[in-house]
Amino acid sequence: MVKVGIVGGTGYTGVELLRLLAKHPQACVTAVTSRKDAGIRVDEMFPSLRGRIDLAFTTPDEARLAECDVVFFATPNGIAMQDAAALLDAGVRVIDLAADFRIKDVFEWEKWYGMQHASPHLVADAVYGLPEVNREAIRSARLVANPGCYPTAVQLGFLPLIEAGVIDTASLIADCKSGVSGAGRKGEIGALLAEAGDSFKAYGVAGHRHLPEIRQGLARASGKPVGLTFVPHLTPMIRGIHATLYARLTKDVDLQRLFESRYADESFVDVLPAGSHPETRSVRGANLCRIAVHRPQGGDTVVVLSVIDNLVKGAAGQAVQNLNLMFGLPENEGLDVVPLLP
Amino acid sequence: MVKVGIVGGTGYTGVELLRLLAKHPQACVTAVTSRKDAGIRVDEMFPSLRGRIDLAFTTPDEARLAECDVVFFATPNGIAMQDAAALLDAGVRVIDLAADFRIKDVFEWEKWYGMQHASPHLVADAVYGLPEVNREAIRSARLVANPGCYPTAVQLGFLPLIEAGVIDTASLIADCKSGVSGAGRKGEIGALLAEAGDSFKAYGVAGHRHLPEIRQGLARASGKPVGLTFVPHLTPMIRGIHATLYARLTKDVDLQRLFESRYADESFVDVLPAGSHPETRSVRGANLCRIAVHRPQGGDTVVVLSVIDNLVKGAAGQAVQNLNLMFGLPENEGLDVVPLLP
Amino acid sequence: MVKVGIVGGTGYTGVELLRLLAKHPQACVTAVTSRKDAGIRVDEMFPSLRGRIDLAFTTPDEARLAECDVVFFATPNGIAMQDAAALLDAGVRVIDLAADFRIKDVFEWEKWYGMQHASPHLVADAVYGLPEVNREAIRSARLVANPGCYPTAVQLGFLPLIEAGVIDTASLIADCKSGVSGAGRKGEIGALLAEAGDSFKAYGVAGHRHLPEIRQGLARASGKPVGLTFVPHLTPMIRGIHATLYARLTKDVDLQRLFESRYADESFVDVLPAGSHPETRSVRGANLCRIAVHRPQGGDTVVVLSVIDNLVKGAAGQAVQNLNLMFGLPENEGLDVVPLLP
Amino acid sequence: MVKVGIVGGTGYTGVELLRLLAKHPQACVTAVTSRKDAGIRVDEMFPSLRGRIDLAFTTPDEARLAECDVVFFATPNGIAMQDAAALLDAGVRVIDLAADFRIKDVFEWEKWYGMQHASPHLVADAVYGLPEVNREAIRSARLVANPGCYPTAVQLGFLPLIEAGVIDTASLIADCKSGVSGAGRKGEIGALLAEAGDSFKAYGVAGHRHLPEIRQGLARASGKPVGLTFVPHLTPMIRGIHATLYARLTKDVDLQRLFESRYADESFVDVLPAGSHPETRSVRGANLCRIAVHRPQGGDTVVVLSVIDNLVKGAAGQAVQNLNLMFGLPENEGLDVVPLLP
Repeated sequence: MVKVGIVGGTGYTGVELLRLLAKHPQACVTAVTSRKDAGIRVDEMFPSLRGRIDLAFTTPDEARLAECDVVFFATPNGIAMQDAAALLDAGVRVIDLAADFRIKDVFEWEKWYGMQHASPHLVADAVYGLPEVNREAIRSARLVANPGCYPTAVQLGFLPLIEAGVIDTASLIADCKSGVSGAGRKGEIGALLAEAGDSFKAYGVAGHRHLPEIRQGLARASGKPVGLTFVPHLTPMIRGIHATLYARLTKDVDLQRLFESRYADESFVDVLPAGSHPETRSVRGANLCRIAVHRPQGGDTVVVLSVIDNLVKGAAGQAVQNLNLMFGLPENEGLDVVPLLP
Repeated sequence: MVKVGIVGGTGYTGVELLRLLAKHPQACVTAVTSRKDAGIRVDEMFPSLRGRIDLAFTTPDEARLAECDVVFFATPNGIAMQDAAALLDAGVRVIDLAADFRIKDVFEWEKWYGMQHASPHLVADAVYGLPEVNREAIRSARLVANPGCYPTAVQLGFLPLIEAGVIDTASLIADCKSGVSGAGRKGEIGALLAEAGDSFKAYGVAGHRHLPEIRQGLARASGKPVGLTFVPHLTPMIRGIHATLYARLTKDVDLQRLFESRYADESFVDVLPAGSHPETRSVRGANLCRIAVHRPQGGDTVVVLSVIDNLVKGAAGQAVQNLNLMFGLPENEGLDVVPLLP
Repeated sequence: MVKVGIVGGTGYTGVELLRLLAKHPQACVTAVTSRKDAGIRVDEMFPSLRGRIDLAFTTPDEARLAECDVVFFATPNGIAMQDAAALLDAGVRVIDLAADFRIKDVFEWEKWYGMQHASPHLVADAVYGLPEVNREAIRSARLVANPGCYPTAVQLGFLPLIEAGVIDTASLIADCKSGVSGAGRKGEIGALLAEAGDSFKAYGVAGHRHLPEIRQGLARASGKPVGLTFVPHLTPMIRGIHATLYARLTKDVDLQRLFESRYADESFVDVLPAGSHPETRSVRGANLCRIAVHRPQGGDTVVVLSVIDNLVKGAAGQAVQNLNLMFGLPENEGLDVVPLLP
Repeated sequence: MVKVGIVGGTGYTGVELLRLLAKHPQACVTAVTSRKDAGIRVDEMFPSLRGRIDLAFTTPDEARLAECDVVFFATPNGIAMQDAAALLDAGVRVIDLAADFRIKDVFEWEKWYGMQHASPHLVADAVYGLPEVNREAIRSARLVANPGCYPTAVQLGFLPLIEAGVIDTASLIADCKSGVSGAGRKGEIGALLAEAGDSFKAYGVAGHRHLPEIRQGLARASGKPVGLTFVPHLTPMIRGIHATLYARLTKDVDLQRLFESRYADESFVDVLPAGSHPETRSVRGANLCRIAVHRPQGGDTVVVLSVIDNLVKGAAGQAVQNLNLMFGLPENEGLDVVPLLP
């Protein structure tokens, strides 16, 4: 039984980790921390977990995280970079669901995240936790940087095209739409139902923090820098990301076959039949990315539609998938959830 | 392995049965019928089931339902009453998720449902499938009338009070709110997002078909007829029922203790701590009824708040619970789902 | 031209006042204050007002409110009671959209609002601004206490029955449902789309601040204290209140005629035809209360359905209606808006 | 007073025409037809219009449309092309809100709309009713083809760039998101709240009927054919379109100034300050297009964000704007509505 600690359990990635781990047959949550809500029972804050998680939030000190096998950081950016080193030194493996270890270029990271990195020496060691790319490295990783939600949807959608060298990588476009849970469980006016409900908008067009992360991943696949325009949007729903990706084809290729072949052995990526339009609800609650590829009007623009649940394959589910890999468990342990539709 | 047939699998109770049974360790769906959509793969209509249900819809004739151990009717009212008899004669057990066998008084049923009953002789034999009331009878039932969604939430909320004889049953009020999936997967203008979204309304105040069903259940518990005003409302959400129940207390009693004691052994009814307000999302996707009981301002009016997922404890989940009872399986087999929140 | 000042213009009642007054032919907003956002242009915070309101938020000091003819307080509770006196002394008339002057019993007010009243001497003078009850007094009022949203919907629904003496006022029930804008434009977790979306819950069952306000209004109509159970609920929509009211009839009466007659001369209360179910969207954006009255199954329980837009007839629209009365303008000046449907 | 007839008044563009015309000081609706609902009062179907529209739906025969000054067709595609000729012959001017007269190439129209055109001779005469492009022609038009919703948002966003010749028109991308009212007031399963709610999807990627309409408009501005990839999406809201447009810059230009200058004299197009992200709710209910232009990271990709209310500037509002032009009225007569926010 893998002993799991969760740092920062009161946000959406925290409660989602708890939902998934509550039914994980080979992992057991022994501590969930929250400085602000220490002492409150988990199932008092999240009644959906009544009868499932018999814990109260504790302070990090009380949590004895050093006795865990693995610790998830479900914290804001900038926390894991301070606290991970001590845990790693104590032999605990770490999965950071925030962005602290995602960008290899520390200078770039500091520019986008607006703070000095507290553990630059750990960045090189950290493994980027996208199993469809880095599976073997994840197995032996001590420190995993769990990918962002947009980066997961966008990379899984572009990768088959880039790896096959069939598109012009100088002018990629990722038009992405996210549900509001992506903004976190924080009292921000813009995420109120009365503000974000029944309305739609773009945000961060000048530059969003997930841009360098996506560029890094695509450049790695491409072998050279890529040009990417990334426009995120807020859509009035709770969960889900829909990435609509555009690229110019440079070679004629059977796109459907290319995608099916790339993901033939991936149990968490589902290539839909030709002509499909995946809905975000078709992955609601499940650790899945569903993808469809189109070539409208037979032109030279390829359009990829990629959907995930931002809290599952875009966060907590992928983190559990990484845990499974790190501890030699079946990759879908605890992740065998049928999406909730309607 | 219990062989299961589903008649009418294209509606919301149908797809919900499929979602739950896909993971049931001791039941296996062998046929799903749809006259209109015969030939279409189940996972083409419901991509959430890709990789989970490897079946196409068939006509009832092709489905060889007589070879099943149990057949669910997830059909409109008036179908099961025509087709159940032949299956029962063939030794197949039947669970009807529609209303055909819920009302013992056939005359009353015909008045409310506006059609002649095709199998009045079966009505008396049918067991009303509310396990918290009829568990033993369900175990040996051949034909189970699965309760309606509103009746489940309302009865579970009123029963402790009525059984204990502490309220005036002559003037009960049930003010109920339902998500739109309760209206079914039909192309009705009133259930469009552009109509039902961002708005709220009552409907059927003059009389709703669930009224006689609730009255029957409460009268049975009370030992005499009850007076009930039942007002259903449509609320702009997908799943969930919230019943707000009002009654006049006739005896002073520890309400919290009464409810906790009544449901102490029920794993699918959760009495919340005193002072709670259950949210429908706290049971989303799960076979649960969560209940809180209040006595505002210490007056003589008791207020019960009762929430279910209308498609699970209010339909498909309760039907699987009944299947488990009928076939001697653990009652929560296939129903061990953590609610999806947020 | 009536010169209008608005104190606290960044909340939902503030922006709604601005929307309505932007088109009022005989009133002109000269100042909008916000301590926190002073200096920011109104149309930068609310782009819907671009080209309509050419003002920036100012501090109260800069606003020169004493030069206004009337000042609206669209502030949290507890502000108007501190600042109104000086304005009144300067000859400015005041309309408070918060609760400071609604409850005549100062002791009761202090109990429910948890603070000491700063201007108890003004409470007696304040006129409760429900025009359908207090029209004449409002015309000459210097200080108007604009009613709460729930109290408006509930009182307008119960008044015809109470004034006619046809119900038992000892056991009234008001089951009310509100959209989330009622919670205000504040960063509260419970009002996030990811929390309040696609879910439904009751709140404040033990006691909500609108209870004493409603009781006071109904008692005044009744001539004696009333017994009222008031249960508010949060429904996943932006605007709108639906009150479902229950009472026991003590006299046989033509309910439809009673309601039509009571509101025959009221242009902002619309009694729907018998058998109707008003939707909140049918009043979206408009200063209207639509009401339907039912007597289900011909029993002795009367059910009243009353809907308003909580931000209009439940707040800013009613405040403008009061302004019109106070300044001798046509009562519907600036309020001639057709509801937005869908 | 302009006498107005509306053919097909039970859909969303119909009720929206009625909402706007109810307050139009110089136009008066004299007939609203519906074959299916003839005899039903308009305000019975749409209670939001109680007290505003004192008409019942009639059959087209009863409607005496030939006595109108102008007739709006708020019908499905394929109706106006049959009925417009007779009205035009009778001297009635016609505004078609459907697609029958939008595409000049009749062969192309027949391919995309799947039917034979009944009045090809009228197509050449019809004026495409986008006032920001065709204002003068509209003034004298007898037959106006009111633009589609997507085409309005996309053309207004691309026009300044194309007219100025600063982008490569061979590879334009329009990623568009629409609320569900765009699907019409029809009982389609895909538009149910339980289907389209809390989910997001693309549709029609292989080819949508608005593609040739947009291409025609952009080609006209460009003076040569354009290459366009158009991907529409369904977003879980009622009203609103958000078009996110991508193009490659071929000349360095002050984009903000270009847009502001292009629309300086247009009262229904609002260019937001640099760096803005328009929300669809900022135009809710109003005849406005709000636009922001970005050049992310200073690269050579220009991103235009363009929002409209699909039922107003994307349909009924633009139709009224056209009516005003055709009858020499002030262009904003009846259109002076402040958007409803929140």
